[in-house]
Amino acid sequence: MAQRKQLKLGAMLHGVGSSTSLWRHPEIQSDASVNFELYKSWVEKAEGSKFDLVFIADGLYINEKSIPHFLNRFEPLTILSALAAVSKKIGLVGTLSTSYSEPFTVARQFGSLDTISGGRAGWNIVTSPLEGSALNFGKKEHPDHAKRYRIATEYLEVTRGLWDSWEDDAFVRDKASGVFFDPAKLHALNHEGEFFSVKGPLNIARSKQGHPVIFQAGSSEVGKDYAAKHADAIFTGHETVEEAIAFYQDVKRRAAGFGRNADEVLVFPGIGPVIGSTEEEAERKYQEVVELVSPENALLYLGRYFEHHDFSQYELDAPFPDLGDLGRNSFQSTTDRIKSVAKEKGLTLRQVALTVATPRPAFIGTPEQVADKVQEWFEAGAADGFMVGSSVPHGLEDFIEQVVPILQARGLFRTEYEGDTLRGNLGLPIPENRYAKSAERV
Amino acid sequence: MAQRKQLKLGAMLHGVGSSTSLWRHPEIQSDASVNFELYKSWVEKAEGSKFDLVFIADGLYINEKSIPHFLNRFEPLTILSALAAVSKKIGLVGTLSTSYSEPFTVARQFGSLDTISGGRAGWNIVTSPLEGSALNFGKKEHPDHAKRYRIATEYLEVTRGLWDSWEDDAFVRDKASGVFFDPAKLHALNHEGEFFSVKGPLNIARSKQGHPVIFQAGSSEVGKDYAAKHADAIFTGHETVEEAIAFYQDVKRRAAGFGRNADEVLVFPGIGPVIGSTEEEAERKYQEVVELVSPENALLYLGRYFEHHDFSQYELDAPFPDLGDLGRNSFQSTTDRIKSVAKEKGLTLRQVALTVATPRPAFIGTPEQVADKVQEWFEAGAADGFMVGSSVPHGLEDFIEQVVPILQARGLFRTEYEGDTLRGNLGLPIPENRYAKSAERV
Repeated sequence: MAQRKQLKLGAMLHGVGSSTSLWRHPEIQSDASVNFELYKSWVEKAEGSKFDLVFIADGLYINEKSIPHFLNRFEPLTILSALAAVSKKIGLVGTLSTSYSEPFTVARQFGSLDTISGGRAGWNIVTSPLEGSALNFGKKEHPDHAKRYRIATEYLEVTRGLWDSWEDDAFVRDKASGVFFDPAKLHALNHEGEFFSVKGPLNIARSKQGHPVIFQAGSSEVGKDYAAKHADAIFTGHETVEEAIAFYQDVKRRAAGFGRNADEVLVFPGIGPVIGSTEEEAERKYQEVVELVSPENALLYLGRYFEHHDFSQYELDAPFPDLGDLGRNSFQSTTDRIKSVAKEKGLTLRQVALTVATPRPAFIGTPEQVADKVQEWFEAGAADGFMVGSSVPHGLEDFIEQVVPILQARGLFRTEYEGDTLRGNLGLPIPENRYAKSAERV
Repeated sequence: MAQRKQLKLGAMLHGVGSSTSLWRHPEIQSDASVNFELYKSWVEKAEGSKFDLVFIADGLYINEKSIPHFLNRFEPLTILSALAAVSKKIGLVGTLSTSYSEPFTVARQFGSLDTISGGRAGWNIVTSPLEGSALNFGKKEHPDHAKRYRIATEYLEVTRGLWDSWEDDAFVRDKASGVFFDPAKLHALNHEGEFFSVKGPLNIARSKQGHPVIFQAGSSEVGKDYAAKHADAIFTGHETVEEAIAFYQDVKRRAAGFGRNADEVLVFPGIGPVIGSTEEEAERKYQEVVELVSPENALLYLGRYFEHHDFSQYELDAPFPDLGDLGRNSFQSTTDRIKSVAKEKGLTLRQVALTVATPRPAFIGTPEQVADKVQEWFEAGAADGFMVGSSVPHGLEDFIEQVVPILQARGLFRTEYEGDTLRGNLGLPIPENRYAKSAERV
């Protein structure tokens, strides 16, 4: 009997929320971004509902204008390692920048997380969009967008090479003969490239999923190519199903163009569902959150995408100002989009700022309505799965408790984990060890 | 009623052991270095006996001659974070090198571990003794010993500054007014030094113990000054109580010379106790371990201290060779000592290699005998506490189960934790926030 194709689900754990003002809501724990017990309870809920993974985003620079969650939050590798110890099956995915770190250390830390968790680690590769990051790492300037992607390409090559240092059967551990490992199955990388020089070998072996799962979220042209060529999964964000389908087809086509099986590049739009027992209740929940945002906070939030540009200098109710190239070396695709929508629709600065700070969610309504929308996007070829976050209090929990059972009843989502590794549950292959492969060719 | 002064205890978690051949023993789990469940069980046992801390050592370079534990082991920050989630009171201390890392990242990761664990993190600062490390980090050469300590000094200054980014009462989180934090209590570091340029602020606040506890293990002159000036606790190793007392007095005097309260610099000799129900049983356990080591392995192990020098080129039973300065830019104090003892006692290469590979433990005998020795060293002023490792199978567990109850009965070790932070249990003060301090002076 053919099984219905099922969607994948990830949970974004964002502390007090990824907006300026959600923390003010009476139902939000205002210390959530540094509350381990809360993170643990979220993972337990997500694993209880058989989610594929939890995701921890990151950033390397703050100033006094940053949103609350960014100011004081857990570092991804440490919080994910802690969460590994209190979970069994769910994937543990975190963001780490290739612009301000060392591949040997990052390969080790993700390798160690992957081994501690029994093959459940994932790495969301970012190149860091903010100029300010450079100043925390003794760099004179932030590399430009294209160069950051060249660095990221070489970086991943090095990391994958280090992960392959030990073939899977290298550790013999024969007590009688005293042979701990087979030296023929230990490989130094000896990488010498444009940006990195790394000898190896790595001092940790592959986990049972081979390599951590590689995620990427770039949506510029260069970013989409990078993701299509290298990533196992892509995070994205769209307001309409048509846009999402176009993006999905675009990256799958690019992946095939790079000689890959397009089914092995999974596309995950992010959603922040708002769920009520009635449509009216859902609408009320959304409005409660909109009302928490002051115009000043909305301008600060908008400024974050534009290299912390000070928008308070403009008239709030005048047309959105002409910013030239500002923002193009930062969140390129987002800032391009904001500028073009503002121009097209003739929006004022206030309208743009409030919409960016609290965008109207595409997934709003009763549990059945939200489940319908999920099914619609999935079956229309807009998504292989969804990354679910909280844009209103308990938005993630509501989805877990009220929408997942409907998706399961419809056969669209698992009721038991297929495997115990992240690759196993996502249906992704275990990468061959580059050295074992060449040995087979002999 | 005056309470008897009590000693401190740490547990070194070393997977298959810090020697070449312990893994061959029938009672050792040969995958121990990458077995999370085993690490978890060790922490549970140590916490059950009210140990102050567990300790994870580290290294950044391997080759085919490295000892088994080094080849394939957990990375300290990830394994400690995982262990934080399955413990409540015990300290979590790990090694991290200041020669091959970024202070912003290290401050964040230790800060995050400290927050996840509720104030139980500790950082053992090393400067990395092995030349080979440089090649994994794109460096042309390993900095010399003196320069490594200059780097380490500035590094710690930067890290402490980043940890103080947020004053303890900075986060107001007032929902009604919308004030999340008080901007006057957020501080950018703006550090510009010889080796580092770091702007800050850090994106995580101090834990309830203020800063992670700083450990150090240098035993060269420069190393002892560094530890006496900057560290909260010092790891050391000695064969006799006289040597241990001399070291103890030396570092306490140095600490006082730097204007510190010498009681706030704790000295922890490392011990690898061998415990039997009789002296004969203890001796048999030690001999079993000696017999696991082949002369080839002993030479490899010896070579590790001397920049992976190939000792197989010498006659095994001839006098220990003259090595000139070899080893002085690596494990300086250890290699100086090996050379001088070999010369003094007229030892052969075989004798030196076997002694270095499996040194006769100072703490061997029945549980009472080992407890007596612990008490003797402690009361003679040779130690504030001990770091206990396994030099024979279950050496740590035997100490926990059989020696700790004797120490507790004698009033020498706690039966309940005094606090729930590492500083609290070690009796160390919470470092003042540098910015709050200057504010008070106004």
